[in-house]
Amino acid sequence: MRHHNFSAGPAVLPLPVLEELRDNLVDFDGTGIGLMEMSHRSAPFQGIIDSAMQRVRRVLALPEGHRVLFLQGGASLQFCMVPQNLLQGGSAVYLDTGAWSIKAIKEARRFGFVKLGWSGEERGYRGVPQGFEGGDEVYLHYTSNNTIAGTQYHEAPTTEGLLVCDMSSDIASHRIDGGRWDLIYAGAQKNLGPSGVTLVVLSERAIERATTADSPTMLDYGTHLAKGSLFNTPNTLGIYVLERVLAWVEDQGLDAVAAANTRKVEALYGLLDASEFWQPHAENDSRSRMNITWRLADTSLEALLLEKALDAGFTGIKGHRSVGGLRASVYNACPEESVSALVDFLREFERTHG
Amino acid sequence: MRHHNFSAGPAVLPLPVLEELRDNLVDFDGTGIGLMEMSHRSAPFQGIIDSAMQRVRRVLALPEGHRVLFLQGGASLQFCMVPQNLLQGGSAVYLDTGAWSIKAIKEARRFGFVKLGWSGEERGYRGVPQGFEGGDEVYLHYTSNNTIAGTQYHEAPTTEGLLVCDMSSDIASHRIDGGRWDLIYAGAQKNLGPSGVTLVVLSERAIERATTADSPTMLDYGTHLAKGSLFNTPNTLGIYVLERVLAWVEDQGLDAVAAANTRKVEALYGLLDASEFWQPHAENDSRSRMNITWRLADTSLEALLLEKALDAGFTGIKGHRSVGGLRASVYNACPEESVSALVDFLREFERTHG
Repeated sequence: MRHHNFSAGPAVLPLPVLEELRDNLVDFDGTGIGLMEMSHRSAPFQGIIDSAMQRVRRVLALPEGHRVLFLQGGASLQFCMVPQNLLQGGSAVYLDTGAWSIKAIKEARRFGFVKLGWSGEERGYRGVPQGFEGGDEVYLHYTSNNTIAGTQYHEAPTTEGLLVCDMSSDIASHRIDGGRWDLIYAGAQKNLGPSGVTLVVLSERAIERATTADSPTMLDYGTHLAKGSLFNTPNTLGIYVLERVLAWVEDQGLDAVAAANTRKVEALYGLLDASEFWQPHAENDSRSRMNITWRLADTSLEALLLEKALDAGFTGIKGHRSVGGLRASVYNACPEESVSALVDFLREFERTHG
Repeated sequence: MRHHNFSAGPAVLPLPVLEELRDNLVDFDGTGIGLMEMSHRSAPFQGIIDSAMQRVRRVLALPEGHRVLFLQGGASLQFCMVPQNLLQGGSAVYLDTGAWSIKAIKEARRFGFVKLGWSGEERGYRGVPQGFEGGDEVYLHYTSNNTIAGTQYHEAPTTEGLLVCDMSSDIASHRIDGGRWDLIYAGAQKNLGPSGVTLVVLSERAIERATTADSPTMLDYGTHLAKGSLFNTPNTLGIYVLERVLAWVEDQGLDAVAAANTRKVEALYGLLDASEFWQPHAENDSRSRMNITWRLADTSLEALLLEKALDAGFTGIKGHRSVGGLRASVYNACPEESVSALVDFLREFERTHG
């Protein structure tokens, strides 16, 4: 029996995608070759990666000039590749909304000047900046959703420069106008697929800027753009799963997926807001629709709750050590039934121990 | 029905490994969580990566001080990481045995001085250096097996510096004394598993040298050593498959796998050497036991042969465009039956067209 999986990532994937993958592992689509055994130069794989790119274009509503890459190394490698390609000794604004922003800032400082536009540190990262407006920096970098604190921008900051966003944990969870961003990157292991694939989207302006940098071959966006993400062997299986996950999104429609995400988060916060027994962590205007973080008023009950949750088949709801308490990650593929079951379980726990 | 898959990589995988993966995709080992859906911080995944590291240690016969990493980005990213960590403005010797060596050399030149110790260019890369002895360079770099030309070192070069080897295409194919190398790297997609995982092995001397470099976080071996390859989210599924592939090797015994590899290559070269109809590409003393490359004396027959081979269920035997003709990649997981079937098919083609 499958558990209710609230892991922050790698995270639950759509069951139909797993079943389809299972059926194609030994013989992909009647080709006589298993999915992981196909050359990345083969026609069947070219079909997969082409479809994956088209799906990304549609789901993110990218304008014609934007380009899509599938790389490796996670968002962590992008923390270095973004400034390597774009900064070139110039000045960038970074918004600090927690651990992931901090890591991005650390790497950027190797390649130019970083201006801290905003920091949530003093508020324990419980909020994100509202309506932040940048200036004439080369680029402005922010993290759209923060898995640890459970915060999210509900409106993107603006800049006269390039707008760069780490969307790892809320990409493809709701409709966006992709043309607003010059560089989007996302590790796949939350909303897009398994770990080991990184999605990167570049605008024409970002591509132009990157071509003037002198980067090592594998860190140069130009290398991968020139070869359609096939300069070297990509994570072929990961790209297949990403393509299937986005097909699953498109089959339902992105708006339907977003509506389900809203219902999930409202069900959870509905419970957490209803009594003093629960103490939601994120500030109201910055609450994430992907990661819900909370403590118990009586923190001494948290260990018991986590133990009982595990026994009841709920996985991955322990909060990050820097916040403590509980965290439920409810990415696209987290079923509404899992959230209902969790709400029922929490309500029962409150009834017993409140 | 599964084809006979001679792809140069991603390549055929052991069928039992694929079947076991298939059975664990939706629910891994009764945990209630699918393999790709588990947190990389979970106990089950820690068990997988620990086992994978131990298997690498045993299969490569690594001494105690050597360390094992599972990274992303393929050998191509190592072309940059190796000099980034080890060269530091110093001087390295590179041996040029073809396309992959050339790419490694290009990256190394960014980080220090590269001395070309040997080049097979004038001989069309049909051979590798025999008994090459280096000097007091920081390190000597070579490519143990060359997939394109179909050549392989049967004896490693020596150096007073660090010995560095790209073993992507012959790792774990026969017994080695891993303590001889200071840095080994290998993309997994030939002998170890699927694409998207890179194995890196470092000696104590290599680790010491790397600590004195000022590298971006993700390019610093020290980062990944300090966190047991879990600094950021690794390719969890890829590491699982690698672990299972090495279990499959260890269950048979590495010597038995190596003996099967010898039988496969002898069967193919036995045919190719028997008549002038076939023209093996690699020089005799440099023949690869992983990739067999050859032309037809009458090159005008090659297109027909490739067409008939595909019809008969043989995949991936078209030679690289720089060599032409045919190539059969017979990595560990390529069944002896596939090689027998190919030999029979080629013999029949010779009978008809010779």
